[in-house]
Amino acid sequence: MSVDRLIEAIEAKKNPTVLGLDPQPEHIPPAVMEKYVAERGRTLDALCGAYEEYVTALTDALHDAVPAVKLQSACFEALGPGGMEVLQRGVRFARERGLYVIIDAKRGDIGSTAKAYSAAFLGRVALGETLLPVFDADAVTVNPYLGSDNLVPFLKDCEAYDKMIFVLCKTSNRSSADVQELMAGDRPLYRVVAEQVSRTGRHLAGRYGYLNAAIVAGATMPAAIRQLRQNHPELFFLMPGYGTQGGRGVDVAYAFDRQGRGAVVNNSRGICCAWQKDPSAAYTDAAREAALAMRDDLRKAIL
Amino acid sequence: MSVDRLIEAIEAKKNPTVLGLDPQPEHIPPAVMEKYVAERGRTLDALCGAYEEYVTALTDALHDAVPAVKLQSACFEALGPGGMEVLQRGVRFARERGLYVIIDAKRGDIGSTAKAYSAAFLGRVALGETLLPVFDADAVTVNPYLGSDNLVPFLKDCEAYDKMIFVLCKTSNRSSADVQELMAGDRPLYRVVAEQVSRTGRHLAGRYGYLNAAIVAGATMPAAIRQLRQNHPELFFLMPGYGTQGGRGVDVAYAFDRQGRGAVVNNSRGICCAWQKDPSAAYTDAAREAALAMRDDLRKAIL
Repeated sequence: MSVDRLIEAIEAKKNPTVLGLDPQPEHIPPAVMEKYVAERGRTLDALCGAYEEYVTALTDALHDAVPAVKLQSACFEALGPGGMEVLQRGVRFARERGLYVIIDAKRGDIGSTAKAYSAAFLGRVALGETLLPVFDADAVTVNPYLGSDNLVPFLKDCEAYDKMIFVLCKTSNRSSADVQELMAGDRPLYRVVAEQVSRTGRHLAGRYGYLNAAIVAGATMPAAIRQLRQNHPELFFLMPGYGTQGGRGVDVAYAFDRQGRGAVVNNSRGICCAWQKDPSAAYTDAAREAALAMRDDLRKAIL
Repeated sequence: MSVDRLIEAIEAKKNPTVLGLDPQPEHIPPAVMEKYVAERGRTLDALCGAYEEYVTALTDALHDAVPAVKLQSACFEALGPGGMEVLQRGVRFARERGLYVIIDAKRGDIGSTAKAYSAAFLGRVALGETLLPVFDADAVTVNPYLGSDNLVPFLKDCEAYDKMIFVLCKTSNRSSADVQELMAGDRPLYRVVAEQVSRTGRHLAGRYGYLNAAIVAGATMPAAIRQLRQNHPELFFLMPGYGTQGGRGVDVAYAFDRQGRGAVVNNSRGICCAWQKDPSAAYTDAAREAALAMRDDLRKAIL
């Protein structure tokens, strides 16, 4: 099962850290950016070149230190079709380096459309009897607002191709309360969502007791994490918000079970932009150092 | 204001119908598909060719009959980077034909990421002081689950570039009740979302009293439409679900004000796949006929 491969990758690296690849123009070291601008002008194509070098170099430098990468689809979509090529090659490169690959796309739509999204990110597009892979990640993030019509096509692909989804439950941003904490009867909406994920995905359990249907729970929300873990020992957590957004090791510790399993913790800017604190260091070295410091922080908090 | 341009386009065509372009392999007339498979094999590239011909021909055939098109991002993403090129050229072609262009992407993320999505679909990507357009549609659909952090960057681009957003409120699918109808205090969640949209976008009002911050309300949900219109005379509605999904003219009539303004009604399969009922007719003729029949149905119900 996909969730088992993720758990085993975490144990092999002794590190539940996900390398978050969310490139923005201002994250790229100036020397890298300038090279492509000199070659290609101030164009989207220059940004594509710079993003690809940056993403590839970071993946390569950290592939033995972290079990997984999370690529933020928005950052690549912002460069248009060329950016989607960089995303596609980024997924492929990370998988070749043995990493578990999550695309953070937060998609959600009615059933027939959700099927197209799932085919794009996890499954295959059917042309007659020919089945064509597209982005072919290990996992994708999914938005629950459309209800089970959206989850079902993704879960079918999870089953057919041994993939995993992370459904947005309690996100790490400040205004996540606007909708997610509205009280639906006796409990906040995000808890209802967690129950729906658990119910819809209960047939997809792996050997450690976790489902291929998992949730996103922000590292900035320790009380929510604690409650969700207590209610749902079967749900694996993807936790964004560590580092720059304010989440700490002690905050995420509640997500882990007694075997130290149950979650991965994403860090994007805190790792990828570590070079900004010391621009004289190689950005890949700075990132590696930040990822190992995060590993130590998490291990101390969990164990 | 963007919403005024949409309203005026509807009035000029005397038709509140949106041509929904949601291509799936099985929607493409066999002659079109076979031509590209013969040229390019059973590949994503063959699907790209077929989708582009199909989308362009439909847009061209209907451009004087409808005011707007809605391109479903998922269908193009499913073909990978090549599909995103088809989407990009599809947007451009429709705008050149004088149509108002909505990309149905249903994006939602934390603030910094929402900014990247908004730059991709509505605004500009900044590389230093150079501002680069990417998909550059007139409007995009947005998901409310992340709260106001997600809406704000989109609304900034609505203001800067005179664009519009449609926030998912009550969607047309069966399981939309799973989350959207949970009771938050005395009212269903989707009504709280409508209130949030109205509050966050109230500074973006056009000359007919409607905001550039608008909502999606499914044509299959007449009771919800009636209630939303009653509470929110300032919100413009994008209504999917007419036709194949079951929505009828009488169901959507509640959305319109006394001047016959206030909404656009999307139809995808009912128009684009009309050729399937009579495969001997040209698919563009069948689509045009279906769009004009829908116009007549809507006008009868509204006026």
